[in-house]
Parts: sequence; C-alpha cells; structure tokens
Amino acid sequence: MAATDARTGREDRILDIIATARAKRPKFRDERITMAHGAGGKATAALIEGLLVPAFASPALDELADAGALAVDGAQLALTTDSFVVKPIRFPGGSIGELAVNGTVNDLAVAGARPLALTLSLILEEGLDTGVLRAEVDAIASAARAAGVEIVAGDTKVVERGHADQLYICTTGVGRRDPRARLSPAALRPGDRVLVSGPIGEHGTAIMLARGEFDLGATVESDTRPLWPAVDALLDAAGPGLRCLRDATRGGVASVLNELARASGVALLVHERAVPVNPVVTGAAELLGIDPMHVANEGVFVAVVAAEQAGAALAALRGAGDGETFARAAEIGEVKTEPPALVLVETAFGGKRVMDQLVGDPLPRIC
Amino acid sequence: MAATDARTGREDRILDIIATARAKRPKFRDERITMAHGAGGKATAALIEGLLVPAFASPALDELADAGALAVDGAQLALTTDSFVVKPIRFPGGSIGELAVNGTVNDLAVAGARPLALTLSLILEEGLDTGVLRAEVDAIASAARAAGVEIVAGDTKVVERGHADQLYICTTGVGRRDPRARLSPAALRPGDRVLVSGPIGEHGTAIMLARGEFDLGATVESDTRPLWPAVDALLDAAGPGLRCLRDATRGGVASVLNELARASGVALLVHERAVPVNPVVTGAAELLGIDPMHVANEGVFVAVVAAEQAGAALAALRGAGDGETFARAAEIGEVKTEPPALVLVETAFGGKRVMDQLVGDPLPRIC
Repeated sequence: MAATDARTGREDRILDIIATARAKRPKFRDERITMAHGAGGKATAALIEGLLVPAFASPALDELADAGALAVDGAQLALTTDSFVVKPIRFPGGSIGELAVNGTVNDLAVAGARPLALTLSLILEEGLDTGVLRAEVDAIASAARAAGVEIVAGDTKVVERGHADQLYICTTGVGRRDPRARLSPAALRPGDRVLVSGPIGEHGTAIMLARGEFDLGATVESDTRPLWPAVDALLDAAGPGLRCLRDATRGGVASVLNELARASGVALLVHERAVPVNPVVTGAAELLGIDPMHVANEGVFVAVVAAEQAGAALAALRGAGDGETFARAAEIGEVKTEPPALVLVETAFGGKRVMDQLVGDPLPRIC
Repeated sequence: MAATDARTGREDRILDIIATARAKRPKFRDERITMAHGAGGKATAALIEGLLVPAFASPALDELADAGALAVDGAQLALTTDSFVVKPIRFPGGSIGELAVNGTVNDLAVAGARPLALTLSLILEEGLDTGVLRAEVDAIASAARAAGVEIVAGDTKVVERGHADQLYICTTGVGRRDPRARLSPAALRPGDRVLVSGPIGEHGTAIMLARGEFDLGATVESDTRPLWPAVDALLDAAGPGLRCLRDATRGGVASVLNELARASGVALLVHERAVPVNPVVTGAAELLGIDPMHVANEGVFVAVVAAEQAGAALAALRGAGDGETFARAAEIGEVKTEPPALVLVETAFGGKRVMDQLVGDPLPRIC
C-alpha cells in the first residue's frame, strides 16, 4: 500500500478506492483452507464475512462483535465461543487452559458483559499424558476462579494419535450485558480518542520465543489476564462516553482498528510514538520483519472514548485492578472523518501511512 | 459379569458388591488418554467424574446431566456444549454439520429446555476443500432452521495439515428450561416405566458401514434429528409424571440406563424383546460381536415415566412431530428397587443378566 500524505487534505484517489473496497463485504473465493484463514487477518475476515455470516443469516452475527446478544425472559445475555489450538500448549506466562478461560471471558468483557459462566469442550489426542491434562484442567479451574465464572457444562472427545496437538479446547462464555454499556462501532464520532490498555505484542512474542524458532537473549511473558475489572472501571468513568471496546487478539491492534474503521465508516489516526511497546517485543518484531501492531495480545484491548471523557477514562483504566496491570495504558490516536474506513499511522517522523490488516501470518496457532 | 437370577429375591453377594462399587465416584488413574476415554463408556465416566467434575467444583456439573443450569436475572437457562469429531464427516442420513446442531439441541431438549440459540466454533484442517466446508456450513444452517435455533456467535481456527480430520465442530446450546419439566434421576420411583423413542443403534451402524470396515448388503441411515418436538409432547402428556430423559448417544442405550441407575440408586429392568431394533442393525451388531444396546444413536432418547402416565406418554410420543418419526417408540422396562444402581436385562428366554456400560468401543469417533 503506497505511503500517502493526508495532512494536505487534497483528495487522494488511491485512498478513496481503497476505502470503497474496504467498506464492502469481503468475498470468499478460496478453494482450500490455508493457515492464513485462521490468523485473524484479511483471509479470516473473508471466510467469516464472506461465507459464515451470510449462511447463518443471524442479526447477532451480522454485528461481527466479540460476543452475540441474546435476550431470554428479560435477561440481557451475551454469548461468545472460541476454540484454542495454541502451540506449544505451555509458554512463559500461561498455557492453553488459562488462555481458554481468559480469551473467552475477555470477549464478553469487551462486549460490555460481565462474565458469569463457561462451558468447556475438550478434544484430546490419543496418547496424551494425563499429567499434562491434569495441569491444564487445574489451569482452567484456577483461571475460572480468578475471573469469577462457573463452569456449567462440559464435553470430552478423543481423536486418534496425530489428529490433534495434545489437546484443543473450546470454551463458550455467557455474560450479563451491563446496562451502563452502549458499545458499538456505530457510536464512533470524529474527535473520539483511541486508548490501548497496555504494552502490545507480548502474547504473540512469547509464543514465538517458546517455539524456539529464533534466538533472542530475553524472555517475554504472555499478557493473558481477565479484562473485566478494567472494563468495569472504564464503564464507571466514561459512562456513555465509552463508545466501543475490542480485545486485540489474533491479528493484533492493527486488525482491531481496521475492523472498527470498517464497521463504523470513520477513519482512525494512530500516533505511532504513543503506542506502548516493550523493547524486547520491538526487537523480536524487527528480527521477524513484522509490525508489533500485527502481533497478537491476550490481555490488551482498544477502547474508543469521547474526547471529554478520555482523560477520566485513561486515569480509571490505569488504576484498574491492582493499579499496576493497566498502569501503562495510553491514548494512542483519534477518530477522524477522512479517509472513511481506513486506519492511518502518523509515524515518528510525522509522515502518514495506511495501517493495513494482517495478510497471512508468520505466527499462526497463537491462541 | 456373571449371569444372575434376580427373580428369586435371594441376596446375591456378587450383585451387592457390584452395586456398592458402582455407587461410588469412579477414580481416574490412567497415565495416557486412550480412544476409550472418548467412547462414552466406563473410561469416559472415570475421566469426567474422576478428574474434570472434582476440579471445577461446580454444582451444575455435579449433576452430570446433559445440560447445566444457569439462572440470570430470573431467566432459567440450560447450557450444553459438545465437540464433534465424527469420521467420516458425511454418512448416510447426515453429516458432521447436521450432527453438531442436533446433538447439541437434543442435549438441551432432554434436559427439559427449549433450544433457543447456538454458538459455533470450527477447527479447520489446512488444505480443507472449501466446497466441503460450504456443504457443512449449509448443513449447519439448515439444521439450525429446522430446530428453530439462531446461531449467535462463532469462531474459526485453522491447524496444520494432518492435525485435524478435515474439520472439528464445537457447538454450545442455550435453552430456556421449561416450567413443566421437573426432570432428575432422583425422581425415579419403583414401578416407573422406561420408554425408548424409537429403533436403536442406527447412527453408530450407519457410521460403521460408511467407514467400509465390513461388508453388509444393506445401508442404514443415521437417525440424527431434533428431539424437542417429542419432548414437548411428553411434557404435555405426562406433566410431573415425566421423571427423567436422556439421549442415548455415545455408549448407546446401555450407557444411559447405567448412568440413570447409578445416579438414582434404583435398579432398572429391561425387557430385551420390547426394545425396537431394525434387523440390519441386529445383523451388523452380530457381525461385530457387540450389543445394539451399546451402539450410538443421535435421535433416540430414553424416558422414565410414572406408571399411571406411561400409556398417555407413549401415545403422545408416537404421535409427536409428523406422527411417523416416533411411531415405533416403545415401553422397554421398569424401575425396581433391587439391586440398587444396576441395570438388568430380561432376555427373550426369561433369564436375567447385568447390562453393563460399554468398556472401550469398537466404534470410536461416531459423533
């Protein structure tokens, strides 16, 4: 994608064309599934929006939010589901079991719903060491306690040796939509501020290092953690000024920002210098030739907040939980009108470029 | 298990010992996961009751029902989850996508809950033909429409070639617990009648024949279908006389009866001659040296009904849906006091034997 200069305000035909294409529902025309379809970037979006969502004709799915809404006898529920296939299953800072709980309760949290309960479905590989299974069962139980959710239903299947990688876990979460939350990409307004809840790229980097694919004289721990306490604090501080939340998992912060820009039709401008990134993540990303904005997180979300509430929201976020976990939350950008449906990055040198969604992924199987 | 004669009423020490052992929570001591842990029989019960349920310390799981209960703001919900790993993914009478909907809505139905919504999580194998995926997505959409449920959330992951069999599907169902339903194994009373909703063993036999593992001059179609209409009719006809329902999937009718006997502490006596089985299923089971009572079903359930309502319940069941689907429902046995926690079969010759749970499984990966 060509670098552009949006500061002059002149019409830029290239951006116009990109924006028009971006606003359309992507087509799904591939003949074979590739790893890219699971990486959370463009191919995943084409699969979901081009094949799955149209087939099921469901208003809840049409919103493409992290959780679907369901009302039952006056109860306002949120539902979300996620399969976890991370490899390796244990890594610095966490494991597949902890991820399976946090990933799912966080999808509820960023939908503005307090997590209440989980279901758990295990696909086990024949020959799996039951000590490994016990450790993950304990990790699940402990993460569920920490997140305050009960496991209310379960299932177990076994597939032949070689037909899974030790274990795959599918968790489904049920939450109560918080009456304070009026979250939707459609609520984004020019002038709104974009916050990020902490340093980015740590989960993806931790997995990459745990795979031993390249040598770096440092370790990074996954950022997996439950996000509801932070969301709760934001809802208190910003009220209806809190426009929208997204957790920046597969595809990283860049994919989430692109999803928001596309869904809302606005432009997002990100100040690259303002984005918190730890040096070891920057170093690993440079070695691999990728942008930390494309690296997966498990405990980081993006919030869009009305300008008037941005200061209070950031302060509340930084003090949420134990007061340390979100201490490095930052304001990283703002909502603009032009070019619609695009994300622009203002680099450290003052230039601007389009920040695209991830295409393919050098790091599949990170969650 | 030795044949016994329970008709004489004399104390049988062997049965006593078995019954005492059976009433205890099974221990999980295996060092490796085997296919038997996924087959729905004894090993599965040990894994679930010996490892998973104690770890999660959840009242909803303790009941070991097909669905867990959750109350949110006055709404009485039922939740259930299931992963589908059937091989082959298409077979006479159905496919993995249809199974993934019906299996999950049926777990809600037999818990006395009207199915409302599903979530859908796909684990796709790299290289999967997208035509195959489209067909399953269509099967899911069509089965969901037939069952009257909306798909409200989804997820897609991709694993490398060889790390799954085309696709695995995890569905989670949310239902509204029907106020007419007071279903629990604890409600079983001596004299209650045992009904089965139709001919047994067809799904497992269909899968076995579709695998081409042995040659039989006939085809059998899977019985996959949504069961709520039949459950609805039974609730109307029997009211609180309807004690308990279980769908007889993995491990077949025998496993379900054993679960009920163990959970309720009563004995169940089954009249073998009364059990509807199609000749081709009997033939296939004989060839394989297994009992059709151990063969999986996808559209068959067992109901325990108070004696006074048994006739009305059976008539309502036979007329449910289109009036043909459940036309061969039958009364197959009754609840006894002795020997506690055991299932006995009265054979065609008038003798009795213990009907045990499945140990291992010649037919894994049937759902």
